[in-house]
Amino acid sequence: MSGRLAVIGLGAGDTGWLTPEAQAALSEADALYGYAGYLDRVPPRPGQSRHPSDNREEGTRSAAALGHAAQGAKVAVVSGGDPGVFAMAAAICEEIEAGPDAWRTLNVTFIPGVTAMLAVAAKIGAPLGHDFCALSLSDNLKPWDLVERRLDAAASAGFVIALYNPISRARPWQFGNAIERLRRHLPPATPVVFGRAVGRMDERVNVTTLADADTAPADMATLVIVGTRETRVIARSGQSPLVYTPRAAVEVSA
Amino acid sequence: MSGRLAVIGLGAGDTGWLTPEAQAALSEADALYGYAGYLDRVPPRPGQSRHPSDNREEGTRSAAALGHAAQGAKVAVVSGGDPGVFAMAAAICEEIEAGPDAWRTLNVTFIPGVTAMLAVAAKIGAPLGHDFCALSLSDNLKPWDLVERRLDAAASAGFVIALYNPISRARPWQFGNAIERLRRHLPPATPVVFGRAVGRMDERVNVTTLADADTAPADMATLVIVGTRETRVIARSGQSPLVYTPRAAVEVSA
Repeated sequence: MSGRLAVIGLGAGDTGWLTPEAQAALSEADALYGYAGYLDRVPPRPGQSRHPSDNREEGTRSAAALGHAAQGAKVAVVSGGDPGVFAMAAAICEEIEAGPDAWRTLNVTFIPGVTAMLAVAAKIGAPLGHDFCALSLSDNLKPWDLVERRLDAAASAGFVIALYNPISRARPWQFGNAIERLRRHLPPATPVVFGRAVGRMDERVNVTTLADADTAPADMATLVIVGTRETRVIARSGQSPLVYTPRAAVEVSA
Repeated sequence: MSGRLAVIGLGAGDTGWLTPEAQAALSEADALYGYAGYLDRVPPRPGQSRHPSDNREEGTRSAAALGHAAQGAKVAVVSGGDPGVFAMAAAICEEIEAGPDAWRTLNVTFIPGVTAMLAVAAKIGAPLGHDFCALSLSDNLKPWDLVERRLDAAASAGFVIALYNPISRARPWQFGNAIERLRRHLPPATPVVFGRAVGRMDERVNVTTLADADTAPADMATLVIVGTRETRVIARSGQSPLVYTPRAAVEVSA
């Protein structure tokens, strides 16, 4: 069987972070699957079919792509950012495990990309400069009390926290609740970075504090980084501030 | 002043993950600074000076690069992987904050890259498919008991754990100690992935279990990913296994 499947990270943003490996995999694919908003970033190529689908259809999209590859085609599934971070790679693995035996013998590759937290961090300095974690605020696939436990654990142990999927129309209260939870562990002045659509034309990066974080605008295209007690803001005249977390742990929260 | 500084992530591995943005920044630099092993990955260009330095000289390297840029040059500091993840970006920010006022007015940009945990994850499936954290096992800049507290917090809250800098000649016992610590929280069969030199000629990726993890070879070029209670291994005849963490949390550790 000559079919194969590549699960490709386009990188956050438009094309500045599209790696050579991802570009090559896009070029050789017979068929592209993905969320329509990500497929739109890939220039059309004659002879290459496109199969856009809606957000939150990861399972059926994965099964369709695997089935297509099992017929002998070179299929690519595209993700924004990195496919292994709250994106398509895990969904593909779930379908392989649950699906027909033939899917296990397919040649499947995963191609990493610049995920949103790295892109947002780079725009503002080095907020992830010490130990950090990545946490999705979506409670579609896990109970909210587990999210709260993880927020407690991460903040009290001094991890910088990158919050993916902070808010959506279907999940309006979770972000405010999470910020409220973090205030139990961290001082009001803790720096918080909002990065929206980083690497795209309408990019917007803001720095605020934990005291003010829940009043800042956030949406599904926003990645939020919450610092630690040690995260610092460097004011710069005529330039945007730098936010960074020092490499050395000088103070340990109790 | 026309000087500027770019802090560039080359991506893990050789050149497959070097982004267009990073490539452009390398091309326009007058001078390159960095750990010698990373500078060796960048092809020489006439007229571009190179300033290699040893590992663990991040502070002096940063100050030298900032001073050079402050004289009007276009300077680039290179990191493997992503500069904001246990690499040069935080060191540069520390020197800017501590240094002369002129350094604050410099044009400084940070260019993200594919960090090792994303590269290793992509080679084996989707082990980071759920919430995860990144933790350096180096205790050069933080006390070991803080590392232990973070291991406890992350494992008991169900984060996948990516361990950077697991071991070195000067830190021979820390990795074994960390694995022992994690065994208090996670079952012996928990999948553990070792990725060494991923994206390079001598790449090696192995899957083992928490029970056997401390007997597997690791060095400074190794990134270790420790799964959760929910992380799964898919055996595939004629192919290497896939390791992934499902998107849905089905079981919560107490």
